[in-house]
Amino acid sequence: MSTPKILILGAGYGGLLTTLKLQQKLHYNEAEVTLVNKHDYHYLTTWLHEPAAGTAPASRAQVDLHKIIDKTKVNFVKGTVASIEPEAQTATLEDGTVLSYDYLVIGLGSEPETFGIEGLREHAFSIRSINAVRQISEHIRYMFAKFKNDPTHTEYLTFVVGGAGFTGIEFCGELGDRIPELCEEFDVNPDLVKIYNIEAAPSALPGFDKELVDYAMEVLMKKGIEFKINTPIKQCTPEGVLLATGEEIKSATVVWTGGVRGNSIVERSGFEVMRGRVKVDEYLHAPGYENVFVVGDCALIFNDQGRPYPPTAQIAGQEGENCGDNLVALVRGELMQKFTPELLGTLASLGKGEGMGQVGDKKLFGSSAALMKKASDLRYLVKIGGIGLAMKKVKL
Amino acid sequence: MSTPKILILGAGYGGLLTTLKLQQKLHYNEAEVTLVNKHDYHYLTTWLHEPAAGTAPASRAQVDLHKIIDKTKVNFVKGTVASIEPEAQTATLEDGTVLSYDYLVIGLGSEPETFGIEGLREHAFSIRSINAVRQISEHIRYMFAKFKNDPTHTEYLTFVVGGAGFTGIEFCGELGDRIPELCEEFDVNPDLVKIYNIEAAPSALPGFDKELVDYAMEVLMKKGIEFKINTPIKQCTPEGVLLATGEEIKSATVVWTGGVRGNSIVERSGFEVMRGRVKVDEYLHAPGYENVFVVGDCALIFNDQGRPYPPTAQIAGQEGENCGDNLVALVRGELMQKFTPELLGTLASLGKGEGMGQVGDKKLFGSSAALMKKASDLRYLVKIGGIGLAMKKVKL
Repeated sequence: MSTPKILILGAGYGGLLTTLKLQQKLHYNEAEVTLVNKHDYHYLTTWLHEPAAGTAPASRAQVDLHKIIDKTKVNFVKGTVASIEPEAQTATLEDGTVLSYDYLVIGLGSEPETFGIEGLREHAFSIRSINAVRQISEHIRYMFAKFKNDPTHTEYLTFVVGGAGFTGIEFCGELGDRIPELCEEFDVNPDLVKIYNIEAAPSALPGFDKELVDYAMEVLMKKGIEFKINTPIKQCTPEGVLLATGEEIKSATVVWTGGVRGNSIVERSGFEVMRGRVKVDEYLHAPGYENVFVVGDCALIFNDQGRPYPPTAQIAGQEGENCGDNLVALVRGELMQKFTPELLGTLASLGKGEGMGQVGDKKLFGSSAALMKKASDLRYLVKIGGIGLAMKKVKL
Repeated sequence: MSTPKILILGAGYGGLLTTLKLQQKLHYNEAEVTLVNKHDYHYLTTWLHEPAAGTAPASRAQVDLHKIIDKTKVNFVKGTVASIEPEAQTATLEDGTVLSYDYLVIGLGSEPETFGIEGLREHAFSIRSINAVRQISEHIRYMFAKFKNDPTHTEYLTFVVGGAGFTGIEFCGELGDRIPELCEEFDVNPDLVKIYNIEAAPSALPGFDKELVDYAMEVLMKKGIEFKINTPIKQCTPEGVLLATGEEIKSATVVWTGGVRGNSIVERSGFEVMRGRVKVDEYLHAPGYENVFVVGDCALIFNDQGRPYPPTAQIAGQEGENCGDNLVALVRGELMQKFTPELLGTLASLGKGEGMGQVGDKKLFGSSAALMKKASDLRYLVKIGGIGLAMKKVKL
């Protein structure tokens, strides 16, 4: 029997942890493992709100794959996936390369969900990749330079964050820290700067404990964020946003954080999806394909109450580890383990030294939440790259 | 007899040196001197190509007026001149303030001369003020961030400098130094970056010695600048420039350095002008007004061959000193001195440690030219602010 080919698409949390499990557990020649990724780095999606605001360099959220992938065990292919052909058991890259597999892991991540709001795709930024957030932070700087040169344009100093979910709130925290620095650097009166957070739902951070939500909003309001909750955005234009209330906010910077859907490649490749995500079985199989696993934001799983789990790094990483273990089991003819998410807690940063969240049934506020978040970041970095990587990346 | 009122409009090279002469020579109560300027800083226009490219911070080209103006001798008014009423002997500021004078010095500087080229005013940048150049350097950075996020847009990495006069050449020198730094920072292949210098005249640096012109072009071509000489720009669009040859260059960054004309306030206030400049008499008087002096880029004077002197900082400064001396003479009922420009030489920088120029009949190349240029900058800074200012501003 020939060596089975395992192909992993995407080196996000899910795909990377699948790969690292295989790299750690498989013996020489048990399987041929190939990881395909658009860039030769992994990035910490949960940190992107910092480089997006400009409070940290983008490079800090980047992890060089060449330093954590063992090339004697894993073939790394830098390329962009164009399509998957599940019947032919192949994936095709944009450069035309065709990669065949016996087992496939789809970890292609997400794209912004715009809920059909007109103009969002064209005129709003999204916190979605290293290059995207670098553009956002440079754009914000540039608006200060433009304003200085033509102070009649107050829209240059008006920033709209669409969505008060996790990313929107964390980004506002960083923006609240960053704006005073930019005002100082460009000699701009801080009173002229407006930051709006606009959320369609009746509350910020829907699903979160009310006490935590109130705390987060209070911290952010002190940093100058103005909330418009229960206020859907009707349209995004080159001039700003039009709200369902009829109000128009003129802004040269709209950052949409209102939600994500699975990578559209998955749907285009013929898999059945809900909002771009594949409803996987208990082994993370795509329906109908025993040799195709889906991890991370492309996978949809439900809790006991029948509600979908949110697309988080925590769950993506757990799926990756389960998937890696199960691929080892399959290769060796052993039994697979069912996947059950283990919710360790949720922590949101609210800017430098500030945060809030829940670990188990304990609520955390302020610096203790910020510290716990750092601890969890450290834990993840140690897992993927050892203590050296963790010490290099985490600001203590 | 009441104390005569001297009003100086603009703190560029001409207006500032007029003011400093008065500050130095006039005794208490000999005259009431008022200096009006848009900002509370003077800036070194001859250095603006550096912060425009991003090779030096804009602040280095700024000189705090509060540190060099003696408030016991000069009233400083921060304001923007809207108009001059020579018959009423007043100047009106944008905020409505009306300032009256017995003697007026117009040193309101220049604006870009677009020679009627369509779209230049709307779509091209100009190296004309601290805020304008800060926008240019931030714009250039931003183009790298945009390119990284969407590498199909090669126009983000194409830079067009319109004009191969003094400013255009010096800016290209800095851009040639800056681009490799940005390529490194944003991880962009330098081969993808294009810098075009486009000049309508049959030669770069028209009027300069051919050997010097050839040297400058060679240095800049080695830095990656591609010259298109004898090639007028027909139109500037949001997508780039259209050349008279029919060629289109797609570029997101067009910087126009093709020439300047006098501040349009002068013409709008009823003074007779040629390209916005007032043809002054030998005492720098505006025709018909014995109490109105014009200095710097708003003044037009001719050499013995009947050709206009170019609008340079060197001549502006000399005019300022002459004007200051003559105002002191007028106040004291003494005789004025005619103005004669003293051409000490011309030095162009071509980026870090590189330059060329002529001092007397001696041609200078490379580091010796760069050094002489620094010496001349030092001399100017010592004159306006003493050795302390000079040491703070000049990179040795």
